[in-house]
Amino acid sequence: MTGIADRLQELGITLPAPPPPAGLYVPALQSGDMLYISGQVPLQDGKVIETGKCGDNITVERGAELARHCTLNALAIAREHLGSLDRIEQVVRVGGYVASAPGFGQQPQVINGASKLLLDVFGDAGQHARAAVGVAELPLNAPVELEFIFRVTQ
Amino acid sequence: MTGIADRLQELGITLPAPPPPAGLYVPALQSGDMLYISGQVPLQDGKVIETGKCGDNITVERGAELARHCTLNALAIAREHLGSLDRIEQVVRVGGYVASAPGFGQQPQVINGASKLLLDVFGDAGQHARAAVGVAELPLNAPVELEFIFRVTQ
Amino acid sequence: MTGIADRLQELGITLPAPPPPAGLYVPALQSGDMLYISGQVPLQDGKVIETGKCGDNITVERGAELARHCTLNALAIAREHLGSLDRIEQVVRVGGYVASAPGFGQQPQVINGASKLLLDVFGDAGQHARAAVGVAELPLNAPVELEFIFRVTQ
Repeated sequence: MTGIADRLQELGITLPAPPPPAGLYVPALQSGDMLYISGQVPLQDGKVIETGKCGDNITVERGAELARHCTLNALAIAREHLGSLDRIEQVVRVGGYVASAPGFGQQPQVINGASKLLLDVFGDAGQHARAAVGVAELPLNAPVELEFIFRVTQ
Repeated sequence: MTGIADRLQELGITLPAPPPPAGLYVPALQSGDMLYISGQVPLQDGKVIETGKCGDNITVERGAELARHCTLNALAIAREHLGSLDRIEQVVRVGGYVASAPGFGQQPQVINGASKLLLDVFGDAGQHARAAVGVAELPLNAPVELEFIFRVTQ
Repeated sequence: MTGIADRLQELGITLPAPPPPAGLYVPALQSGDMLYISGQVPLQDGKVIETGKCGDNITVERGAELARHCTLNALAIAREHLGSLDRIEQVVRVGGYVASAPGFGQQPQVINGASKLLLDVFGDAGQHARAAVGVAELPLNAPVELEFIFRVTQ
Protein backbone atom coordinates (compact mmCIF):
# COMPACT_ATOMS: atom_id res chain seq x y z
CA MET A 1 0.00 0.00 0.00
CA THR A 2 1.39 3.36 -1.01
CA GLY A 3 0.87 6.31 1.24
CA ILE A 4 -0.64 9.71 0.59
CA ALA A 5 2.79 11.33 0.14
CA ASP A 6 3.42 8.99 -2.81
CA ARG A 7 -0.04 9.68 -4.14
CA LEU A 8 0.56 13.45 -4.04
CA GLN A 9 3.80 12.92 -5.95
CA GLU A 10 2.02 10.81 -8.58
CA LEU A 11 -0.49 13.65 -8.99
CA GLY A 12 2.32 16.21 -9.28
CA ILE A 13 1.12 18.03 -6.18
CA THR A 14 3.45 19.86 -3.81
CA LEU A 15 1.57 21.16 -0.79
CA PRO A 16 2.09 24.84 0.07
CA ALA A 17 3.26 26.02 3.48
CA PRO A 18 0.25 25.96 5.81
CA PRO A 19 -1.21 29.50 5.88
CA PRO A 20 -1.46 31.19 9.27
CA PRO A 21 -4.95 31.84 10.67
CA ALA A 22 -6.60 35.18 9.83
CA GLY A 23 -7.86 35.72 13.37
CA LEU A 24 -7.93 34.46 16.94
CA TYR A 25 -8.44 30.79 16.10
CA VAL A 26 -6.30 27.77 15.31
CA PRO A 27 -6.00 26.31 11.81
CA ALA A 28 -6.95 22.82 13.04
CA LEU A 29 -8.63 21.52 16.17
CA GLN A 30 -8.82 17.81 16.94
CA SER A 31 -11.46 16.43 19.29
CA GLY A 32 -11.30 12.66 19.67
CA ASP A 33 -10.95 11.28 16.16
CA MET A 34 -12.48 14.31 14.45
CA LEU A 35 -10.20 16.97 13.00
CA TYR A 36 -11.86 20.29 12.25
CA ILE A 37 -10.03 22.50 9.73
CA SER A 38 -10.85 26.21 9.92
CA GLY A 39 -12.27 28.05 6.92
CA GLN A 40 -9.67 28.42 4.16
CA VAL A 41 -9.65 31.13 1.53
CA PRO A 42 -7.32 30.84 -1.51
CA LEU A 43 -4.26 32.37 0.14
CA GLN A 44 -0.83 32.16 -1.47
CA ASP A 45 2.20 33.83 0.11
CA GLY A 46 -0.12 35.68 2.48
CA LYS A 47 -2.41 37.11 -0.17
CA VAL A 48 -5.69 36.00 -1.72
CA ILE A 49 -4.79 34.82 -5.23
CA GLU A 50 -7.76 36.60 -6.74
CA THR A 51 -10.69 38.57 -5.31
CA GLY A 52 -14.23 38.89 -6.59
CA LYS A 53 -17.41 36.94 -7.10
CA CYS A 54 -18.42 33.89 -9.01
CA GLY A 55 -20.84 34.80 -11.75
CA ASP A 56 -19.21 38.21 -12.02
CA ASN A 57 -15.43 38.43 -12.61
CA ILE A 58 -14.76 34.83 -11.54
CA THR A 59 -15.86 32.04 -13.89
CA VAL A 60 -17.04 28.66 -12.65
CA GLU A 61 -13.78 27.08 -13.88
CA ARG A 62 -11.64 29.66 -12.10
CA GLY A 63 -13.75 29.33 -8.95
CA ALA A 64 -13.16 25.57 -9.01
CA GLU A 65 -9.38 26.14 -9.29
CA LEU A 66 -9.51 28.47 -6.31
CA ALA A 67 -11.58 25.93 -4.34
CA ARG A 68 -8.88 23.37 -5.13
CA HIS A 69 -6.27 25.79 -3.83
CA CYS A 70 -8.21 26.24 -0.54
CA THR A 71 -8.16 22.47 -0.21
CA LEU A 72 -4.39 22.27 -0.75
CA ASN A 73 -4.03 24.79 2.08
CA ALA A 74 -6.28 22.63 4.26
CA LEU A 75 -4.23 19.51 3.50
CA ALA A 76 -1.04 21.40 4.37
CA ILE A 77 -2.60 22.33 7.72
CA ALA A 78 -3.79 18.76 8.33
CA ARG A 79 -0.34 17.37 7.52
CA GLU A 80 1.31 19.80 9.92
CA HIS A 81 -1.17 18.90 12.64
CA LEU A 82 -1.12 15.13 12.11
CA GLY A 83 2.50 14.59 11.05
CA SER A 84 1.26 12.54 8.09
CA LEU A 85 -1.79 12.62 5.86
CA ASP A 86 -1.86 8.82 6.14
CA ARG A 87 -3.61 9.40 9.45
CA ILE A 88 -6.75 10.66 7.60
CA GLU A 89 -9.17 7.74 7.61
CA GLN A 90 -12.08 9.54 6.03
CA VAL A 91 -13.08 12.96 4.81
CA VAL A 92 -16.40 13.50 6.58
CA ARG A 93 -17.82 16.89 5.65
CA VAL A 94 -16.90 19.74 3.33
CA GLY A 95 -18.51 23.14 3.80
CA GLY A 96 -18.24 25.34 0.73
CA TYR A 97 -19.03 29.04 0.68
CA VAL A 98 -19.04 30.76 -2.71
CA ALA A 99 -19.13 34.56 -2.96
CA SER A 100 -21.89 34.81 -5.54
CA ALA A 101 -23.06 37.52 -7.90
CA PRO A 102 -26.84 37.96 -8.20
CA GLY A 103 -28.44 35.04 -10.02
CA PHE A 104 -25.39 32.74 -9.77
CA GLY A 105 -26.52 29.17 -9.00
CA GLN A 106 -23.51 26.99 -9.89
CA GLN A 107 -22.01 26.73 -6.41
CA PRO A 108 -21.80 22.92 -6.71
CA GLN A 109 -19.58 23.13 -9.80
CA VAL A 110 -17.26 25.56 -7.99
CA ILE A 111 -16.98 23.40 -4.90
CA ASN A 112 -16.37 20.34 -7.08
CA GLY A 113 -12.83 21.73 -7.43
CA ALA A 114 -12.32 20.83 -3.78
CA SER A 115 -14.20 17.53 -3.90
CA LYS A 116 -12.33 16.27 -6.96
CA LEU A 117 -8.98 16.88 -5.30
CA LEU A 118 -10.06 14.99 -2.18
CA LEU A 119 -11.24 12.03 -4.28
CA ASP A 120 -8.04 12.08 -6.36
CA VAL A 121 -5.84 12.09 -3.27
CA PHE A 122 -7.75 9.82 -0.88
CA GLY A 123 -9.87 7.60 -3.16
CA ASP A 124 -12.84 6.09 -1.28
CA ALA A 125 -11.66 7.74 1.93
CA GLY A 126 -12.10 11.05 0.13
CA GLN A 127 -15.86 10.64 -0.22
CA HIS A 128 -17.70 13.18 1.90
CA ALA A 129 -20.96 14.88 2.76
CA ARG A 130 -21.08 18.47 1.57
CA ALA A 131 -23.02 21.69 1.76
CA ALA A 132 -22.42 24.41 -0.83
CA VAL A 133 -24.02 27.81 -0.53
CA GLY A 134 -23.68 31.23 -2.12
CA VAL A 135 -22.71 33.95 0.31
CA ALA A 136 -22.66 37.74 0.01
CA GLU A 137 -19.04 38.41 0.90
CA LEU A 138 -16.01 36.51 2.21
CA PRO A 139 -12.94 37.47 4.22
CA LEU A 140 -10.42 39.50 2.20
CA ASN A 141 -12.99 39.59 -0.63
CA ALA A 142 -12.10 36.00 -1.52
CA PRO A 143 -14.36 34.30 -4.09
CA VAL A 144 -14.53 31.02 -2.16
CA GLU A 145 -14.00 29.58 1.34
CA LEU A 146 -13.88 25.94 2.39
CA GLU A 147 -13.94 24.21 5.76
CA PHE A 148 -13.45 20.50 6.45
CA ILE A 149 -14.01 17.72 8.95
CA PHE A 150 -11.69 14.71 8.72
CA ARG A 151 -11.81 11.50 10.74
CA VAL A 152 -8.29 10.60 11.79
CA THR A 153 -6.46 7.83 13.60
CA GLN A 154 -5.74 8.84 17.18
CA MET B 1 -43.70 0.91 20.29
CA THR B 2 -44.51 1.82 16.73
CA GLY B 3 -41.72 2.54 14.33
CA ILE B 4 -41.02 5.56 12.16
CA ALA B 5 -42.52 3.88 9.09
CA ASP B 6 -45.87 3.67 10.93
CA ARG B 7 -45.49 7.23 12.11
CA LEU B 8 -44.92 8.45 8.55
CA GLN B 9 -48.07 6.60 7.47
CA GLU B 10 -50.08 8.19 10.31
CA LEU B 11 -48.88 11.59 9.11
CA GLY B 12 -49.81 10.75 5.52
CA ILE B 13 -46.22 11.09 4.39
CA THR B 14 -44.71 9.09 1.53
CA LEU B 15 -41.01 9.75 1.20
CA PRO B 16 -39.76 10.66 -2.29
CA ALA B 17 -37.00 8.76 -4.05
CA PRO B 18 -33.68 9.98 -2.63
CA PRO B 19 -32.36 12.68 -4.97
CA PRO B 20 -28.90 12.12 -6.48
CA PRO B 21 -26.10 14.47 -5.37
CA ALA B 22 -25.55 17.65 -7.40
CA GLY B 23 -21.77 17.24 -7.42
CA LEU B 24 -18.78 15.10 -6.46
CA TYR B 25 -20.02 14.18 -2.98
CA VAL B 26 -22.17 11.53 -1.37
CA PRO B 27 -25.70 12.22 -0.10
CA ALA B 28 -24.86 10.79 3.34
CA LEU B 29 -21.62 10.05 5.16
CA GLN B 30 -21.56 8.15 8.44
CA SER B 31 -18.64 8.46 10.83
CA GLY B 32 -19.07 6.43 13.99
CA ASP B 33 -22.60 7.11 15.18
CA MET B 34 -22.91 10.45 13.39
CA LEU B 35 -24.66 10.59 10.03
CA TYR B 36 -24.00 13.73 8.00
CA ILE B 37 -26.59 14.48 5.30
CA SER B 38 -25.39 16.72 2.48
CA GLY B 39 -27.13 20.01 1.72
CA GLN B 40 -30.58 19.46 0.24
CA VAL B 41 -32.43 21.86 -2.01
CA PRO B 42 -36.15 21.31 -2.77
CA LEU B 43 -35.65 18.93 -5.68
CA GLN B 44 -38.55 16.94 -7.12
CA ASP B 45 -38.07 14.70 -10.13
CA GLY B 46 -34.65 16.22 -10.72
CA LYS B 47 -35.82 19.85 -10.71
CA VAL B 48 -36.04 22.54 -8.05
CA ILE B 49 -39.76 22.90 -7.30
CA GLU B 50 -39.54 26.66 -7.30
CA THR B 51 -36.68 29.15 -7.64
CA GLY B 52 -36.30 32.60 -6.12
CA LYS B 53 -35.81 34.37 -2.83
CA CYS B 54 -37.68 34.60 0.41
CA GLY B 55 -38.95 38.09 0.95
CA ASP B 56 -39.23 38.55 -2.81
CA ASN B 57 -41.26 36.00 -4.85
CA ILE B 58 -41.26 33.36 -2.10
CA THR B 59 -43.43 34.00 0.98
CA VAL B 60 -42.48 32.78 4.44
CA GLU B 61 -45.21 30.12 4.26
CA ARG B 62 -44.03 28.88 0.86
CA GLY B 63 -40.44 28.91 2.05
CA ALA B 64 -41.43 26.75 5.04
CA GLU B 65 -43.13 24.26 2.69
CA LEU B 66 -39.98 24.08 0.59
CA ALA B 67 -37.85 23.61 3.73
CA ARG B 68 -40.15 20.71 4.67
CA HIS B 69 -39.60 19.24 1.21
CA CYS B 70 -35.80 19.45 1.62
CA THR B 71 -36.23 17.53 4.85
CA LEU B 72 -38.30 14.81 3.19
CA ASN B 73 -35.45 14.40 0.70
CA ALA B 74 -32.99 14.15 3.58
CA LEU B 75 -35.10 11.49 5.31
CA ALA B 76 -35.29 9.53 2.05
CA ILE B 77 -31.51 9.64 1.86
CA ALA B 78 -31.14 8.63 5.51
CA ARG B 79 -33.54 5.71 5.05
CA GLU B 80 -31.63 4.49 2.02
CA HIS B 81 -28.34 4.73 3.92
CA LEU B 82 -29.55 3.21 7.18
CA GLY B 83 -32.08 0.68 5.92
CA SER B 84 -34.62 2.01 8.43
CA LEU B 85 -35.31 5.42 9.98
CA ASP B 86 -35.75 3.58 13.30
CA ARG B 87 -31.96 3.70 13.52
CA ILE B 88 -32.08 7.49 14.04
CA GLU B 89 -31.62 8.00 17.78
CA GLN B 90 -31.49 11.77 17.73
CA VAL B 91 -31.52 14.66 15.31
CA VAL B 92 -28.45 16.64 16.40
CA ARG B 93 -28.07 19.70 14.20
CA VAL B 94 -29.96 21.35 11.38
CA GLY B 95 -28.23 23.93 9.21
CA GLY B 96 -30.68 26.14 7.32
CA TYR B 97 -29.71 28.46 4.50
CA VAL B 98 -32.39 30.78 3.16
CA ALA B 99 -31.86 32.71 -0.09
CA SER B 100 -32.98 36.11 1.18
CA ALA B 101 -34.09 39.31 -0.50
CA PRO B 102 -32.69 42.55 1.02
CA GLY B 103 -34.22 43.23 4.42
CA PHE B 104 -35.69 39.74 4.90
CA GLY B 105 -35.21 38.61 8.51
CA GLN B 106 -37.66 35.72 8.97
CA GLN B 107 -35.22 32.88 8.27
CA PRO B 108 -36.30 31.11 11.51
CA GLN B 109 -39.92 30.90 10.37
CA VAL B 110 -38.82 29.42 7.03
CA ILE B 111 -36.58 26.81 8.62
CA ASN B 112 -39.37 25.93 11.07
CA GLY B 113 -40.88 24.03 8.12
CA ALA B 114 -38.00 21.56 8.50
CA SER B 115 -37.95 21.54 12.29
CA LYS B 116 -41.69 20.92 12.61
CA LEU B 117 -41.49 17.88 10.36
CA LEU B 118 -38.61 16.44 12.38
CA LEU B 119 -40.55 16.92 15.63
CA ASP B 120 -43.72 15.43 14.10
CA VAL B 121 -41.86 12.38 12.85
CA PHE B 122 -39.37 11.71 15.66
CA GLY B 123 -40.93 13.33 18.74
CA ASP B 124 -38.33 14.07 21.42
CA ALA B 125 -35.65 12.45 19.27
CA GLY B 126 -36.45 15.12 16.69
CA GLN B 127 -35.29 17.98 18.92
CA HIS B 128 -32.15 19.58 17.53
CA ALA B 129 -29.72 22.47 17.63
CA ARG B 130 -30.05 24.76 14.63
CA ALA B 131 -28.47 27.63 12.78
CA ALA B 132 -30.53 29.60 10.24
CA VAL B 133 -28.95 32.25 8.07
CA GLY B 134 -29.87 34.28 4.99
CA VAL B 135 -27.58 33.69 2.06
CA ALA B 136 -27.16 35.54 -1.24
CA GLU B 137 -27.74 32.66 -3.66
CA LEU B 138 -28.18 28.90 -3.56
CA PRO B 139 -27.47 26.06 -6.00
CA LEU B 140 -29.94 25.99 -8.92
CA ASN B 141 -31.39 29.27 -7.60
CA ALA B 142 -33.23 27.35 -4.88
CA PRO B 143 -34.89 29.46 -2.16
CA VAL B 144 -33.71 27.20 0.67
CA GLU B 145 -31.09 24.57 1.50
CA LEU B 146 -30.90 22.33 4.55
CA GLU B 147 -28.19 20.05 5.94
CA PHE B 148 -28.48 17.66 8.88
CA ILE B 149 -26.54 15.67 11.45
CA PHE B 150 -28.28 12.62 12.92
CA ARG B 151 -27.02 10.33 15.68
CA VAL B 152 -27.72 6.75 14.67
CA THR B 153 -27.40 3.26 16.08
CA GLN B 154 -24.31 1.54 14.69
CA MET C 1 -7.31 25.52 40.25
CA THR C 2 -9.99 28.15 39.98
CA GLY C 3 -13.14 27.44 38.06
CA ILE C 4 -14.79 29.28 35.20
CA ALA C 5 -17.23 31.05 37.55
CA ASP C 6 -14.24 32.67 39.30
CA ARG C 7 -12.66 33.48 35.98
CA LEU C 8 -15.85 35.22 34.79
CA GLN C 9 -15.85 37.26 38.01
CA GLU C 10 -12.20 38.24 37.49
CA LEU C 11 -13.12 39.43 34.00
CA GLY C 12 -16.09 41.39 35.36
CA ILE C 13 -18.53 39.30 33.32
CA THR C 14 -22.07 38.53 34.46
CA LEU C 15 -23.78 36.14 32.06
CA PRO C 16 -27.23 37.18 30.83
CA ALA C 17 -30.32 35.00 31.19
CA PRO C 18 -30.18 32.37 28.43
CA PRO C 19 -32.30 33.66 25.53
CA PRO C 20 -35.19 31.46 24.37
CA PRO C 21 -34.93 29.89 20.90
CA ALA C 22 -36.38 31.85 17.98
CA GLY C 23 -38.02 28.79 16.44
CA LEU C 24 -38.79 25.10 16.79
CA TYR C 25 -35.37 24.04 18.04
CA VAL C 26 -33.54 23.73 21.33
CA PRO C 27 -30.82 26.16 22.41
CA ALA C 28 -28.37 23.31 23.10
CA LEU C 29 -28.22 19.67 22.04
CA GLN C 30 -25.69 17.27 23.50
CA SER C 31 -24.71 14.09 21.68
CA GLY C 32 -22.08 12.06 23.51
CA ASP C 33 -19.44 14.53 24.61
CA MET C 34 -20.27 17.12 21.95
CA LEU C 35 -22.53 20.04 22.84
CA TYR C 36 -24.01 21.90 19.89
CA ILE C 37 -25.21 25.45 20.64
CA SER C 38 -27.80 26.84 18.23
CA GLY C 39 -27.13 30.02 16.28
CA GLN C 40 -27.14 33.08 18.54
CA VAL C 41 -27.92 36.61 17.46
CA PRO C 42 -27.15 39.54 19.81
CA LEU C 43 -30.40 39.39 21.78
CA GLN C 44 -30.87 41.34 24.99
CA ASP C 45 -34.17 41.31 26.85
CA GLY C 46 -35.80 39.64 23.84
CA LYS C 47 -34.64 42.20 21.30
CA VAL C 48 -31.67 42.41 18.93
CA ILE C 49 -29.40 45.09 20.43
CA GLU C 50 -28.78 46.64 17.06
CA THR C 51 -29.80 45.75 13.50
CA GLY C 52 -27.96 46.35 10.24
CA LYS C 53 -24.89 45.30 8.32
CA CYS C 54 -21.19 45.37 8.89
CA GLY C 55 -19.53 47.71 6.46
CA ASP C 56 -22.67 49.85 6.38
CA ASN C 57 -24.13 51.14 9.68
CA ILE C 58 -22.17 48.69 11.86
CA THR C 59 -18.42 49.25 12.23
CA VAL C 60 -15.96 46.40 12.66
CA GLU C 61 -15.49 47.35 16.34
CA ARG C 62 -19.23 47.40 16.99
CA GLY C 63 -19.67 44.12 15.13
CA ALA C 64 -17.01 42.55 17.34
CA GLU C 65 -18.85 43.76 20.46
CA LEU C 66 -22.06 42.22 19.16
CA ALA C 67 -20.24 38.96 18.37
CA ARG C 68 -19.01 38.96 21.97
CA HIS C 69 -22.58 39.43 23.15
CA CYS C 70 -23.75 36.43 21.06
CA THR C 71 -21.04 34.42 22.79
CA LEU C 72 -22.18 35.50 26.26
CA ASN C 73 -25.67 34.25 25.32
CA ALA C 74 -24.15 30.96 24.19
CA LEU C 75 -22.24 30.57 27.45
CA ALA C 76 -25.43 31.28 29.40
CA ILE C 77 -27.16 28.51 27.43
CA ALA C 78 -24.25 26.13 27.96
CA ARG C 79 -24.21 26.83 31.71
CA GLU C 80 -27.93 26.18 31.96
CA HIS C 81 -27.56 22.92 30.04
CA LEU C 82 -24.44 21.66 31.81
CA GLY C 83 -24.99 23.01 35.32
CA SER C 84 -21.45 24.43 35.29
CA LEU C 85 -19.14 25.82 32.61
CA ASP C 86 -16.35 23.82 34.28
CA ARG C 87 -17.70 20.88 32.29
CA ILE C 88 -16.48 22.48 29.03
CA GLU C 89 -13.23 20.66 28.19
CA GLN C 90 -12.62 22.32 24.85
CA VAL C 91 -14.22 24.77 22.48
CA VAL C 92 -14.14 22.83 19.19
CA ARG C 93 -15.67 24.95 16.44
CA VAL C 94 -17.09 28.44 16.07
CA GLY C 95 -19.26 29.28 13.08
CA GLY C 96 -19.53 33.02 12.46
CA TYR C 97 -22.00 34.61 10.08
CA VAL C 98 -21.64 38.34 9.46
CA ALA C 99 -24.39 40.29 7.67
CA SER C 100 -22.17 42.12 5.22
CA ALA C 101 -22.59 45.21 3.06
CA PRO C 102 -21.22 44.94 -0.50
CA GLY C 103 -17.43 44.89 -0.50
CA PHE C 104 -17.05 44.18 3.24
CA GLY C 105 -14.24 41.67 3.81
CA GLN C 106 -13.37 42.01 7.51
CA GLN C 107 -15.52 39.15 8.81
CA PRO C 108 -12.55 37.69 10.73
CA GLN C 109 -12.10 40.90 12.77
CA VAL C 110 -15.80 40.88 13.65
CA ILE C 111 -15.80 37.24 14.73
CA ASN C 112 -12.63 37.86 16.76
CA GLY C 113 -14.99 39.47 19.30
CA ALA C 114 -16.32 35.98 19.99
CA SER C 115 -12.96 34.21 19.81
CA LYS C 116 -11.26 36.64 22.19
CA LEU C 117 -13.92 36.12 24.84
CA LEU C 118 -13.57 32.33 24.57
CA LEU C 119 -9.77 32.57 24.97
CA ASP C 120 -10.11 35.00 27.89
CA VAL C 121 -12.57 32.73 29.69
CA PHE C 122 -11.23 29.26 28.91
CA GLY C 123 -7.53 29.81 28.13
CA ASP C 124 -6.07 26.94 26.07
CA ALA C 125 -9.40 25.12 26.24
CA GLY C 126 -10.86 28.13 24.44
CA GLN C 127 -8.81 27.54 21.29
CA HIS C 128 -11.05 26.51 18.39
CA ALA C 129 -11.42 25.93 14.69
CA ARG C 130 -13.52 28.61 13.00
CA ALA C 131 -15.28 29.55 9.82
CA ALA C 132 -16.32 33.17 9.24
CA VAL C 133 -18.42 34.15 6.25
CA GLY C 134 -20.39 37.18 5.10
CA VAL C 135 -24.08 36.50 4.61
CA ALA C 136 -26.83 38.52 2.95
CA GLU C 137 -29.29 38.73 5.84
CA LEU C 138 -29.73 37.29 9.33
CA PRO C 139 -32.73 36.56 11.56
CA LEU C 140 -34.34 39.72 12.97
CA ASN C 141 -31.93 41.74 10.77
CA ALA C 142 -29.13 41.04 13.22
CA PRO C 143 -25.61 42.04 12.09
CA VAL C 144 -24.00 38.84 13.34
CA GLU C 145 -24.83 35.23 14.30
CA LEU C 146 -22.62 32.67 16.00
CA GLU C 147 -22.93 28.94 16.57
CA PHE C 148 -20.64 26.73 18.66
CA ILE C 149 -19.53 23.18 19.30
CA PHE C 150 -18.07 22.44 22.74
CA ARG C 151 -16.56 19.18 23.99
CA VAL C 152 -17.85 18.52 27.50
CA THR C 153 -17.38 16.01 30.30
CA GLN C 154 -20.22 13.50 30.32
